Amino acid sequence: MPSINRQFVLASRPKGFPQESNFNLVESPIPALQQGEFLVRAHYLSVDPYMRGRMNDVKSYAPPVQIGEVMTGGVTGEVVESNHDKFNVGEFVSGQFGWQEFAVSDGKGVRKVDPNLAPLSTSLGVLGMPGLTAYFGLLDVCDPKSGETVLVSGAAGAVGTLVGQIAKIKGCRAVGIAGSEDKIKYLMDELGFDAAFDYKTTTNYFAKLRELCPNGIDCYFDNVGGEITDAALRLLNLHARVSICGQISQYNLEQPELGPRMLGLLIVTRSKVQGFLVSDYAPRFGEGLQQMAEWIKAGKLKYHENIIEGFEKMPQAFIGMLRGENTGKQLVKAIV
Amino acid sequence: MPSINRQFVLASRPKGFPQESNFNLVESPIPALQQGEFLVRAHYLSVDPYMRGRMNDVKSYAPPVQIGEVMTGGVTGEVVESNHDKFNVGEFVSGQFGWQEFAVSDGKGVRKVDPNLAPLSTSLGVLGMPGLTAYFGLLDVCDPKSGETVLVSGAAGAVGTLVGQIAKIKGCRAVGIAGSEDKIKYLMDELGFDAAFDYKTTTNYFAKLRELCPNGIDCYFDNVGGEITDAALRLLNLHARVSICGQISQYNLEQPELGPRMLGLLIVTRSKVQGFLVSDYAPRFGEGLQQMAEWIKAGKLKYHENIIEGFEKMPQAFIGMLRGENTGKQLVKAIV
Repeated sequence: MPSINRQFVLASRPKGFPQESNFNLVESPIPALQQGEFLVRAHYLSVDPYMRGRMNDVKSYAPPVQIGEVMTGGVTGEVVESNHDKFNVGEFVSGQFGWQEFAVSDGKGVRKVDPNLAPLSTSLGVLGMPGLTAYFGLLDVCDPKSGETVLVSGAAGAVGTLVGQIAKIKGCRAVGIAGSEDKIKYLMDELGFDAAFDYKTTTNYFAKLRELCPNGIDCYFDNVGGEITDAALRLLNLHARVSICGQISQYNLEQPELGPRMLGLLIVTRSKVQGFLVSDYAPRFGEGLQQMAEWIKAGKLKYHENIIEGFEKMPQAFIGMLRGENTGKQLVKAIV
Repeated sequence: MPSINRQFVLASRPKGFPQESNFNLVESPIPALQQGEFLVRAHYLSVDPYMRGRMNDVKSYAPPVQIGEVMTGGVTGEVVESNHDKFNVGEFVSGQFGWQEFAVSDGKGVRKVDPNLAPLSTSLGVLGMPGLTAYFGLLDVCDPKSGETVLVSGAAGAVGTLVGQIAKIKGCRAVGIAGSEDKIKYLMDELGFDAAFDYKTTTNYFAKLRELCPNGIDCYFDNVGGEITDAALRLLNLHARVSICGQISQYNLEQPELGPRMLGLLIVTRSKVQGFLVSDYAPRFGEGLQQMAEWIKAGKLKYHENIIEGFEKMPQAFIGMLRGENTGKQLVKAIV
């Protein structure tokens, strides 16, 4: 076992798209444990769109990461030392341990993971935050009914791939928007989406959506925002429900973008647009995880992971994810 | 009784703000009744913001008025002839009879009005569509809790005056936005709003709202849209609810206006934005009218009517209402 810890700290705040130079790889001693603490060694680290927001010095639902501070992030690893009576050496745990190889925890917000039930990496994907985001964001916010049309943007990502499949499980028409022909092929051929299109090679989103959603859109799960969402909102059906999960098209803009005012459309269709955060559903995580695990076991829910090896590749993995280079869940494997 | 009918028909579609020349006053014989029909003579005619939308050749929740067709609108009047077994001569009724002095009806969508219970004019205001709009749009869509802050735009209008007062009845802080010092005075001194400001003399809506809503905004009832709404959305509290009733700032624009993209804010605050139409609450109109009548009787709910006399002044009344010349409900009295 190494005797030093490696961490990625925020070196500078990005202007527009993040660069690897916004992060510094620093080394520090592995801290000694206090009573009631344990030490986790990272096996898998997650990179997610929300981290981009934490790099800005703007009040949001969570405070920004400070310059010189370790980047926040979900990690699954092994307890390698413990002064805690509920977390024992050799157990696997998942929590917000940040971009570092070793983390000290007092157990708050940490859940145990059984590597015999499912691969360890799934605790950061389909059986973790992205899975729960898809589950509650679609089922609770949109409440799709059999026969309805569910559109999802960012459809080939960690959350989007699951949203479309859950829509299918619920008897809906699932339509996806993603950023490459390979992704479209994956959504249609592997995941059973009814329709999907590549926004990078499509010029008229509205015309394409009208073609792929001939009965309009009843539920829209939005990870992307911007012009894709402008087009989608114009096709909402009466009493449609829109779940705002992310707006990744806006995160790296140097200047905020203007767009058409859409609130009048909501009157015409009596539609609802609702922002949500998965953490608000914490009391129901057990229900969500159990259902997702059952669907996986029954072969109804597939997942894909894109794993980059080497802790030092965290910035590269993060930036690649923001660029849409991954299909499914983007992870970094720290122990190779 | 006159032997001819006078009607306002749509002469041309407005570009931007409507002109009186967009309407033609035409005369026609009063039609003979078929079996199952009755003839209504208008006493009061309503002018409402939604009528502006019907003048455009655009599909909305209702079809547009065609050129040469009688303008749509709510009217309360007296049954003066009847071949209908449920509507008798001498009874008063309210329905969508349009901009005309006499209308033939088969009774569909028509309700009887008892002029002994409340002044006839209230059937088009506080005890009619605007009253029900305030009632369901605030209580059902926003569901305000005691102690919360409720902001309403278009606060001095037929709906807004009632929204603020219902918010007070529910124990909320009521804050209004309106378009003159007289209106602000009326909201504060007569209706008991906790705070209000004149958007026409205020340059920084956000700063003013932050001052008047020191605890943020929990519920926002929007009649106006545009820059006022941009500012309001930036002050939403966690789990805020926004009821989109109208967007009058946008109705007379010759070119659609761009605005800041706001969906990201909804994630941060996990807020809901919901468009609604009062007609969707038709099965619950009885409940709403009964409650509003009780509040009036108990002195908890005041209403104000702005009445212009003379049927021929319908276009003038309508255009004046769009310009915000009225406080409370704008009506035209046809029989003077």
